[in-house]
This record gives sequence, structure tokens and C-alpha cells, in this order.
Amino acid sequence: MISFARGVPGPDCLPLEEIGDCTLAVLQRPERDAAQYGPPAGFPPLRELLAERHGVDPARVFVSNGSLQGLAFLWQRLLQGENKRVLVEAPTYDRPLKILQGLGAEVTGVPMDDGGLELDALERALDEGPKPAFLYTIPTFQNPSGRTLLLERRRQLVDLAEAEDLLIVEDDPYGLVRFEGDPLPSLLELAPAGRVIYSCSFSKTIAPGLRVGYLVLPPELAAAVEAIAVSTYVSPVIFTQAIVWEFLRTGLLEPNLQRAGGLLRERRDAMLGALEREFPDGASWSRPEGGYFIWLDLPGEVDAGALLSEAEAAGVTFVKGTDFFAGPGGESSARLAFSFAVPAEITDGVGLVAEALRKLLGRVAPLPATV
Amino acid sequence: MISFARGVPGPDCLPLEEIGDCTLAVLQRPERDAAQYGPPAGFPPLRELLAERHGVDPARVFVSNGSLQGLAFLWQRLLQGENKRVLVEAPTYDRPLKILQGLGAEVTGVPMDDGGLELDALERALDEGPKPAFLYTIPTFQNPSGRTLLLERRRQLVDLAEAEDLLIVEDDPYGLVRFEGDPLPSLLELAPAGRVIYSCSFSKTIAPGLRVGYLVLPPELAAAVEAIAVSTYVSPVIFTQAIVWEFLRTGLLEPNLQRAGGLLRERRDAMLGALEREFPDGASWSRPEGGYFIWLDLPGEVDAGALLSEAEAAGVTFVKGTDFFAGPGGESSARLAFSFAVPAEITDGVGLVAEALRKLLGRVAPLPATV
Repeated sequence: MISFARGVPGPDCLPLEEIGDCTLAVLQRPERDAAQYGPPAGFPPLRELLAERHGVDPARVFVSNGSLQGLAFLWQRLLQGENKRVLVEAPTYDRPLKILQGLGAEVTGVPMDDGGLELDALERALDEGPKPAFLYTIPTFQNPSGRTLLLERRRQLVDLAEAEDLLIVEDDPYGLVRFEGDPLPSLLELAPAGRVIYSCSFSKTIAPGLRVGYLVLPPELAAAVEAIAVSTYVSPVIFTQAIVWEFLRTGLLEPNLQRAGGLLRERRDAMLGALEREFPDGASWSRPEGGYFIWLDLPGEVDAGALLSEAEAAGVTFVKGTDFFAGPGGESSARLAFSFAVPAEITDGVGLVAEALRKLLGRVAPLPATV
Repeated sequence: MISFARGVPGPDCLPLEEIGDCTLAVLQRPERDAAQYGPPAGFPPLRELLAERHGVDPARVFVSNGSLQGLAFLWQRLLQGENKRVLVEAPTYDRPLKILQGLGAEVTGVPMDDGGLELDALERALDEGPKPAFLYTIPTFQNPSGRTLLLERRRQLVDLAEAEDLLIVEDDPYGLVRFEGDPLPSLLELAPAGRVIYSCSFSKTIAPGLRVGYLVLPPELAAAVEAIAVSTYVSPVIFTQAIVWEFLRTGLLEPNLQRAGGLLRERRDAMLGALEREFPDGASWSRPEGGYFIWLDLPGEVDAGALLSEAEAAGVTFVKGTDFFAGPGGESSARLAFSFAVPAEITDGVGLVAEALRKLLGRVAPLPATV
């Protein structure tokens, strides 16, 4: 089975040798603290390093076992009151949707276009109901769409949030996974203090198996999130946080982003090229400059679930669009992850999906000449 | 400050060199899976190894980021219905108490004596209310008391649970941390299938910073707990689970238990010896054959909180007994952890606590001759 389903780095993207070196280094610390319990907010040297990078106080940095666990703690706190209204992008990452639903949130999806969240639609959503507890957004190389919020819209979003006193939760696991174009400022960087809570992860920039992600929180929320963490797991995985600290401290991140980014660019190019060659008129897709995902809109309102069944029977899998919407939407769309399969598999896999699509469209013959 | 407060292994107890060797070994696996995402129930080879050890199907083994996180997931599931009644030992480990309270549990404490849970009291608690959702118990070297449930009582507890259809959640992080006496069977081993859910951890047998613990679940609960896990953190920390697997697989656990157990025995002996020498008549304490903790009952109903203030002013800290009770109890008791400080510090620290006690009892002079 060729998988376009999960947002997982290929095994060749992982810097295993460097991780081994960093492990040996932190185990030799005279403090002997890398395999010990630690503070609930994480390994102190890593918190300090991340605080310096973001220009904030270390007390505002909360490091958890992957960023999703940090978001789960944060949302448990933010939704403990009466206000359960939450705005998300439509589509948005499916796992946070499940966490929000589990916490009893009333989730409203705000439409996106190729430039990211549509701000007119956001204004309407704000007008149509009580002030939400927060907006959850992935502005850069979004999961699932691969779309990036335009710079001008970032500024407008921050202004709107200020005017409407809207709290923004910015999830940024892919911001550093850029393999072309110029970096954009995060919402955290653009906004006045306290307006944006920032979430990030090393799953896509070092390795997911380490499960190290972090939040940058307003000071008043940091203590509350720590209290939830200590009750849930005593302390997070100090061992892998120490390894990430060593990785960053010794300058291994930038070369790793270059190397893994090169592999990812080849995969994205293979997928874009195959889509261009294989897919019929009426289909459209995003063209991200980084990240892991391409969003595919099918022609003729073909049902993506039916396409998935056909594709899986042919040996390729993806995620259907409906999984990424809180309400209706995505029925004729799909998320294609290009991060895991190698270029030749991607070319073959897109060909198989296109063939399945032609079958559903009743255009089984004649087959176009494929490469 | 000399700390008897936290149940933390001393830095010299941690097998750092072996952890380094295991890390390099798992990073060289041809599967390149040690730094990758993995299944929500944990690293498959570790699940298989643990399943073999317990004679159960691997699908019943759920490995999480420390055992407390597994218990939190389990209890979220067990308490999702109407029945919120939970029985615990009095005293019991404070962190699970907080998790249970956070889930809205109605917690009833069942008294213990030197032989562990008092079964007469358990029967009364069962008679006095509706059938509890479960009993939470730490039968061996209990946190906080250091007490161990007698073999005969283990059998009786299992029989009683069968007769009353009582689900037992057995927490066993210290069972292998035995440095004298004969091992006792776990409740899981004694009970018919499905009666006992078993929780264990490698925090005290390898290293806490790895955060690897596991549950052995009835098949019907395993899938439900996995579903909660995948929504919370995608996958647990595969990297440290792979290291634990390598550690077990290559036979490093038994020598490490011997080595760390030797260090812990010296510490326990130092604490018991100092208590014997320094403490006045009327004080009493547990004499565990393993684990991390001694439970101290003060003479003359001295308030343990007042003693703690005096002791901290003198440079030594512990946890007061009341922290380990859901209701009243422990006002004149304390948990002393002997796991962290070295023997000379333990001797000094117990001396300082005894001096603080004499002060509170109005027996400041003459001082007894101390070693």
C-alpha cells in the first residue's frame, strides 16, 4: 500500500545518527538529570533556549509530550467555564477537532481559500454568535490543506482579534519546514502580548518519536497548564527534551532542516508533477512551499469516500476531506500527504488515484499516456 | 535542604551508561522505527515482550508516558458513566487522588494496618454504598506507607472481589524494587481473568525520565483506552519505549535491580537506624522490605504540618500525612522517602526531624546523645 494518509516523515528524513550523539552527550551531563523526573513544564535548559528564541520569559514556555498533549491541557483550561464556543479553520486538523469535541466545545468552522482563512467569513462568524473562547488556526502549510495565510491577512487577523478581543491559538508545527519562498512572521510575532498562544513541535523538524512540542503561554495561563500536567503525568519525558535541547544547542537543527527539506521538496515536486500530468480538468489542488500536505478538490463533485475505496483497492490510501470538518464540507476533497513515500512511489500512487477517479467519472477508456 | 519529600531515585541509582548503549542499539534497527510515530498503545516489540512476561495477549498491553497517564486514560473511561464511587486505600498516593477528584469521583478511603488494606473495613465500605466503579490499590511497598498486603489477605481480597463483583485496579511500580524477603504474587496473578487491571512502571526499575509505564487491560477496555490516547497525543514516546525494550531484551533489568536495590537498602537501613536511635517512645513507623517510603506516626498527636515547618527551617523536608487522604486522616503522620538522599544525609536529616519533634513536644533539653 502506498500511503498518502499520514503526516509522517519518511524514515530517511530522520537524523538518527545525530540523535544518538545528542543522547550520549546529555547522559554525560554532570547533573545526571537527563533520565530523572523534572519539572512539569519541562527540561529547564530547553525551556530557557526556547524562551530566548521567542524573546519571552522561560516561565511562559511549557514543553509537553508532543504539541497535541499541550493543546489538550490548554483547552481543558480554556473551556472549563461556560463559554464553549470555538472557531476553527474549515478544513482543520482532525485530531484537535476530536479533542475539542471531547471537551464539549461548540465548534464553528470558518472557510479558507488559497490565501488561508477568509477574514470576511471570520468577521461574520464573530458577528453571528457570542465571543468565542478562542480561534484555533494553523497559519503556515496548514494541516490538512497545505495552505498558508498571506502576510497581509496575518496583519489583518491580528488587528481584527485586537478589535474583537479574540484569543488566537496559533499552531505552527510546519513553519520551519519551508523548502522555498520567504519565511513569514508568526502571528505571535505580529500581535501584542497576550493576544496569541503559540504551539510548536519538533516532530517535523527533528523526529516524531521523541514527542517534544511546546506552548508559549501568557504568564497567567502557564501556571494553570502546569497544574494540569503535573496531575496527569508527574513530569513529561525529560530524556527526549534533553536530547532536543542538545540538538538545538549544538546547531544541528538548521542543517537538518536543509537536508530533510531537500527530500520533502523532491516528494512535493513528484506529487505536483503527477497531479498535473494525471488529473483531469476540473480538479484543483494547493501548491505549498513547505510542510507535508496537498489538498485536492475533485472534479464533478465526485465523492471522496468512493474514490478512497477504489484507490485502496488499487493499493494507495489517503484521507478523505470530510474528516477535517466539524460540520458538512470536504465531501469532494482529499488530503494527500507527500512526506512519507519516496518520489517514485508518489508518481505511481497519484497515477493509481487518477485511474480510480477516471473509473468513477466513467472515463475508463482510453487511458491517457502516462510517464 | 535534605529531601525526604519526593519518591525519586538518587542519581547514582540510574543506569545511564546502559541507557546510552540501548539507545544506540535501537537507533540502528533496520526498521528505523525508534524515532518515528507508532501505534497509540506503544512500541510493538515492547508490548509483545511485556505480554509474554504476564502471559497475556499483546493487545491487552497498553504502554504510556509513565503509568500515571495510563491510569488517567483508564479512569476517564471507567468513570464516564453514572457510577462515580471509587474506593482507595487510606492513605494512598496523592497524584491519583487528584486525577480521581478531577474526574468527579466520589472517593472513599479504606483503612490500612501494617498488613495492608483492612479487609473488614473494605467489606463495610462495600456494604455502606452502591457498588464502586473500582478499588484502586498499591499492594506492594505502597506509596505513601511502604506497607505490603499480606499473602493471605491478597487471596481474601481476590475472593471478596469475585463475590462482590468488584473491579480491582492494582498499581505495582515497586513490586520489583524488593531488596529482602520473598516476592509475593500480584493480584493480577491470583485473580481470575478480568477481575484485575494491572499498572506498572519502569520509573523505579530503570529511570523515571524515560516515562514508560504500562497497563494490562481486559480486551474490551484496551481499545477504549487506545482511542483516548490517540486523541490526546497521537502516539506515546516510542523512542524511550524502544530503549526500555532493548534494556529488558538484553537482560539488563535484573542486574540493575540488584545494583540499585543495594543502594536503596543502605538508605532504608540508614533511615530505620536513625529513627530507632533518635525518635521518642510513642512514635512508630513501617519497616518495608523494598520500595521508596517509610510511614511515620508521630507521638502525642503532634501536628505533622507544624513539624514540617520546623523541619524545613532546620533544612529537611518531607510530605505531611494529610496529603494522602481523600477525607480526614494523617494529621499526625508523615511520608519519608529514603530513595533520594545518601545514607549520611538520611542520618543527619532524621536527626533534624527528631530535634524539631522534641521542640514541639516541649522536650528541647536535654538533647539525647546522637551518633
